[in-house]
Amino acid sequence: MSAKRLPSNPRVAVVGATGAVGRVILDILLERSFPASEVRAIATARSAGSKIPFGDLDLTVMEISEEALEGADLVLLDTPDEAALEWAPIAVDKGAIVADNSAAWRMEESVPLVVPEINPHDIDWHSGILASANCTTIGVVVPLFALHREFGLASALVSSYQAVSGAGRPGVEELREQALKVVDDLDSLGLGNYTGPDPKTFSEPVAFNVVPLVGSERDGGFTGEEWKLRFEARKIMGLPDLEISGTCVRVPSVAGHGSSVHATFESEVTSKAAIDVLGNAPGVELTDVPTAVLAAGRDPCFVGRVRQDPDDPCSIWFFTTSDNLRKGAALNTVQIAELLLP
Amino acid sequence: MSAKRLPSNPRVAVVGATGAVGRVILDILLERSFPASEVRAIATARSAGSKIPFGDLDLTVMEISEEALEGADLVLLDTPDEAALEWAPIAVDKGAIVADNSAAWRMEESVPLVVPEINPHDIDWHSGILASANCTTIGVVVPLFALHREFGLASALVSSYQAVSGAGRPGVEELREQALKVVDDLDSLGLGNYTGPDPKTFSEPVAFNVVPLVGSERDGGFTGEEWKLRFEARKIMGLPDLEISGTCVRVPSVAGHGSSVHATFESEVTSKAAIDVLGNAPGVELTDVPTAVLAAGRDPCFVGRVRQDPDDPCSIWFFTTSDNLRKGAALNTVQIAELLLP
Repeated sequence: MSAKRLPSNPRVAVVGATGAVGRVILDILLERSFPASEVRAIATARSAGSKIPFGDLDLTVMEISEEALEGADLVLLDTPDEAALEWAPIAVDKGAIVADNSAAWRMEESVPLVVPEINPHDIDWHSGILASANCTTIGVVVPLFALHREFGLASALVSSYQAVSGAGRPGVEELREQALKVVDDLDSLGLGNYTGPDPKTFSEPVAFNVVPLVGSERDGGFTGEEWKLRFEARKIMGLPDLEISGTCVRVPSVAGHGSSVHATFESEVTSKAAIDVLGNAPGVELTDVPTAVLAAGRDPCFVGRVRQDPDDPCSIWFFTTSDNLRKGAALNTVQIAELLLP
Repeated sequence: MSAKRLPSNPRVAVVGATGAVGRVILDILLERSFPASEVRAIATARSAGSKIPFGDLDLTVMEISEEALEGADLVLLDTPDEAALEWAPIAVDKGAIVADNSAAWRMEESVPLVVPEINPHDIDWHSGILASANCTTIGVVVPLFALHREFGLASALVSSYQAVSGAGRPGVEELREQALKVVDDLDSLGLGNYTGPDPKTFSEPVAFNVVPLVGSERDGGFTGEEWKLRFEARKIMGLPDLEISGTCVRVPSVAGHGSSVHATFESEVTSKAAIDVLGNAPGVELTDVPTAVLAAGRDPCFVGRVRQDPDDPCSIWFFTTSDNLRKGAALNTVQIAELLLP
């Protein structure tokens, strides 16, 4: 027996519609002509009653409630984890399928964690909730899995270069305020004197800085973000024992998470062989220099700087960037919903 | 027979004195009370005749020439490689010892490549020229060698986060111009629309971006910067077969190069054991979050985020930042000169 699917023209509720990812979800539903018969914008009480543009329409934001979810076939959630924990089961009880972009459900055994280029078949065993993955993780696993299929992945080491919009609009605002204040005196910053506003969203000033801590440290000194990279990558790729770890770092880019990846395979991988595979991989676009700005506002995972490790013919280095709000969040969530259409 | 040393109060010539590193060399000579009996500032014809502050003095910049080097006991060179290739042997012929910060001489067999915390003894076999190392390399090898002495280094993988001042003052100017132009419209940049001035010093716009290419690609797709990391690290640490490679990335910080390092040792290394060693390592300062701004204007290599690899008890992750103009260049060069004092 296969799991529940959507009707042909589902009624869609976007919860968290006023946030950075929520707005991109609405954009992407339009861009991809998602066959919704109705789209509702839902958020907290604070935003209720405000208007959000949706094509030629203005959606009036509804406050999250059982009533607001009534009759929805598909609920796309982008909220803090606590809200997703609370509202996803309610939406399922009311008959909806939930595609959730929070971290709340990703590691639940009964919840498929789906990146459509990798494990689309995992939608077959959902019980109402499907999870989209962490933004850094998605950008890494899309190219990595294409290489795995060909060469057999043994291990991966990742260092990330994460944009401020990973913390939503407050992250972008914080970068903007700090940068405006200090851009006129970069020489002073070059001597270690930061004179901008105190950080609120991030733990350290982020403008013209590099901050090797995303979130806070947990077991073994790894942050939640770093553990997500490990455990989500294993679940998505169906490699429960994969050796994968990393260091997550915030940098002052606006959108487009980057990762420097060193990956080791079971067989020899030349640069040319890796490039051939990546050139045909779904969701991957090869480029010479995959910058953050190149990825921003675009759908693919851009991959470049592919090189065979000079010490190990079974290992390669590559760099990848992808838009953390699109493929890293909103796009992947909508792609999951597309898989559920008849 | 040991190699030539400096007299007690050497006459010092700083060549490239008007550049970003040259100015810091002059600052550091004063800060560290280097016992110079005379300090000359030398540069190209373009800067000749201009004044550079040096404590209470104004040094009049001299044009580089055989006469300008006459009588100097110590020549501190920070010039493009071609100029260092030309002028270092001339300075040696005239009786000086040369400490060179360019890449021109680093890999010459007859030239010691010195990081004083690691291989001070290598000054004993110089033939007139001593080389200081690449800025990213120095920041990595200072903590890495301390760990090597205790645990035996087997291999290292490095992803760098390099500040724009690594390209000198033109790099800082380029970041400033681009950032001033686009800081008012970060939302547009977040959609991938860069509207600032075209890059000149760097290959891509660097403001609010991540550029995973420092220099240009050479053998095997690795850049010159990436090959320097490998071959200089081997020579400095006296580990000619060390397995070490990396990806070098430019980020929009002003000063303070960062590196995310994964290092594998011959014996087990717990986080605590690594932290104990690093806490006592010369030139290293432990900190929770080693940001670029923390390192800027300061001398130590800051190290933090030390974690044992969850898949390999013999491997650790750490992050390090150091000022690319100071420890990565000017400070290391002056430290080499200090080793040569009687």
